[in-house]
Amino acid sequence: MIATINRRGYFNAAHRLYNKNWSENKNNIIFGKCANKNYHGHNYEFIIGITGKIDPETGFVISIDTLKKIISNEIEKPFDHKNLNLDIEDFNSKNPTTENIAIVIWNKIRKKISKNFIIKVSLYETNMNYAEYIG
Amino acid sequence: MIATINRRGYFNAAHRLYNKNWSENKNNIIFGKCANKNYHGHNYEFIIGITGKIDPETGFVISIDTLKKIISNEIEKPFDHKNLNLDIEDFNSKNPTTENIAIVIWNKIRKKISKNFIIKVSLYETNMNYAEYIG
Amino acid sequence: MIATINRRGYFNAAHRLYNKNWSENKNNIIFGKCANKNYHGHNYEFIIGITGKIDPETGFVISIDTLKKIISNEIEKPFDHKNLNLDIEDFNSKNPTTENIAIVIWNKIRKKISKNFIIKVSLYETNMNYAEYIG
Amino acid sequence: MIATINRRGYFNAAHRLYNKNWSENKNNIIFGKCANKNYHGHNYEFIIGITGKIDPETGFVISIDTLKKIISNEIEKPFDHKNLNLDIEDFNSKNPTTENIAIVIWNKIRKKISKNFIIKVSLYETNMNYAEYIG
Amino acid sequence: MIATINRRGYFNAAHRLYNKNWSENKNNIIFGKCANKNYHGHNYEFIIGITGKIDPETGFVISIDTLKKIISNEIEKPFDHKNLNLDIEDFNSKNPTTENIAIVIWNKIRKKISKNFIIKVSLYETNMNYAEYIG
Amino acid sequence: MIATINRRGYFNAAHRLYNKNWSENKNNIIFGKCANKNYHGHNYEFIIGITGKIDPETGFVISIDTLKKIISNEIEKPFDHKNLNLDIEDFNSKNPTTENIAIVIWNKIRKKISKNFIIKVSLYETNMNYAEYIG
Repeated sequence: MIATINRRGYFNAAHRLYNKNWSENKNNIIFGKCANKNYHGHNYEFIIGITGKIDPETGFVISIDTLKKIISNEIEKPFDHKNLNLDIEDFNSKNPTTENIAIVIWNKIRKKISKNFIIKVSLYETNMNYAEYIG
Repeated sequence: MIATINRRGYFNAAHRLYNKNWSENKNNIIFGKCANKNYHGHNYEFIIGITGKIDPETGFVISIDTLKKIISNEIEKPFDHKNLNLDIEDFNSKNPTTENIAIVIWNKIRKKISKNFIIKVSLYETNMNYAEYIG
Repeated sequence: MIATINRRGYFNAAHRLYNKNWSENKNNIIFGKCANKNYHGHNYEFIIGITGKIDPETGFVISIDTLKKIISNEIEKPFDHKNLNLDIEDFNSKNPTTENIAIVIWNKIRKKISKNFIIKVSLYETNMNYAEYIG
Repeated sequence: MIATINRRGYFNAAHRLYNKNWSENKNNIIFGKCANKNYHGHNYEFIIGITGKIDPETGFVISIDTLKKIISNEIEKPFDHKNLNLDIEDFNSKNPTTENIAIVIWNKIRKKISKNFIIKVSLYETNMNYAEYIG
Repeated sequence: MIATINRRGYFNAAHRLYNKNWSENKNNIIFGKCANKNYHGHNYEFIIGITGKIDPETGFVISIDTLKKIISNEIEKPFDHKNLNLDIEDFNSKNPTTENIAIVIWNKIRKKISKNFIIKVSLYETNMNYAEYIG
Repeated sequence: MIATINRRGYFNAAHRLYNKNWSENKNNIIFGKCANKNYHGHNYEFIIGITGKIDPETGFVISIDTLKKIISNEIEKPFDHKNLNLDIEDFNSKNPTTENIAIVIWNKIRKKISKNFIIKVSLYETNMNYAEYIG
């Protein structure tokens, strides 16, 4: 019995899109208002999907309580009320686009979940834009 | 032309998570507040996705009206305003976790839909937790 | 400067609608499927609105952090994953309708908030039904 | 690094479901109230998902700004505040069901996006019904 | 004990904004794309709020079941899958703007509810625009 | 005929809560993680409600198109993808709390709308917290 269990999480953060190797002008052309040097921000929302066998004794793919703690410790606590560019090391050399944030989250969750499970991350920057990554 | 048509459904029910083969104490450790002996409850929400060929005469994979009646008769009427553990036979020997409820719904829908179609069930226990099952 | 600040909260609970002074039959006629003797349940969602003067030093009517703690201690912790009829004393003699739950919440919040503030409670039983109470 | 970036769009339109080769009576039997000769309408909502390699210089699968312009020019401007049956040529010979509208949108987006990318269209007719098409 | 109980309802309809006493040109200037002669449409959503005394025996301001039937008979059945301008007499001489639809709904509900209750109608044309009317 | 018409708007911005007259330590005690010196951010969402007489010729309290332009010019364009503390003059001497942002928006809309209308601003910082201001 293979199923997927999904858990939602949240963090509110500032960011800007910026490539250090480009001129200010090129950054403005490519990233537009997202390049604002004083930053802007979002209520980021994400879903972690875990696919695997259901344990017949519990009826769980993975305990929601366990997943909730991993999400809180790995993503919500370190990212919430932060500036992604300045406060989160992963984005020192990686532009915090919706796609890249999804990948960073996936990597952090991957380290904490058994290899028997497939992981999918969906990251909503706004209600209009979201990225999906499955490794 | 292969497409998927999805229809949403709802039921409000009580449940508790509990394994009869375990002590009260072990149930409380594993299922926490979900094991409350007096039950708690949820506004369950689900999506039935049907994937198959589009009928060129109607433009439908399956008539929404047909799907709506199956959902109403098989899931909403029997499950709504019930106690899943006490009132629904399927959960006599199966813990009503999000994953297991998705599987029970899938089995009930599967019996009513042509084998030419693939069925996917998404079951939301809350806005925070949901399971997916595709057979 | 008078404004209102609102904070949302959640609890998942079982309940049934029932009047002890009535026959089983009359309960079924008046409350229909809501009278199911084995209970059903909901993902209750509520909004606490606090209206009053903005403190010029903080820019707050009331600190969201303070309000969050009151909501957690007075409502979410005691009500979440409970059976309202069996586990919550306030509903021993009061039918847990949407209206009555809103009033019970209002009374609990009222005791913890300065009389300089007006309190409004909105309680959502489902996305379809909600009650409002302002004392 | 393969990821998916999704962008939401909207249009409000009138339509009716109708097969010209059938009698009025057969149309009413098959399509029910959706066949109303004076039309009815919906707030259509759709999601365009683009799957492909992330450009390491931008961190984008595709620039959201580019995708937004394609969505606006190809779908939102031509479809918004229109009667799908009367004003949109694609539905002269194709019944505007949820499934068929998803396919028409997919075809229009496909012409504007590099073949290196996979396209998925999700089309919501209402909150209750939606179709998905991936070509 | 005065409280408000609210119930949500839905109908999907076509309409256009148009003043018969004006030229086609003036209609286009004032109503823009909303004047499209072939109509467009919306998923209308509304909330009926009923304010009054709570009956101590039931715990209800008004039974949700009663309110649901009034909403279904007075609004949902006659308006759903209709063209407001052509199929609904109330809009023969009244432009079906968000404001006017709210008033028409209010008048229909007012006739069916005891004068002891205050009625409020909120009508959502889209997620972006809604009107409120309290008589 | 008095009614209210409401229009929703959005902006994504960075901010921090901070009182210049207080020590860094007091700011951290009072504002907690909201005081982060590198800022954080939100997807702000707001609703402008305009209450007044319905014009019998149009059926509008105020044209949605007019209101949309005022919202875009006065709020969305100047605030979107900005740092409220650094980029918006109004918050040089005013802490950008939910309450204060609602008041700043109200003042900007008030200048553009006839005094015959009452204005209400609802400002959502997140789905959990929102402020309301009516002047």
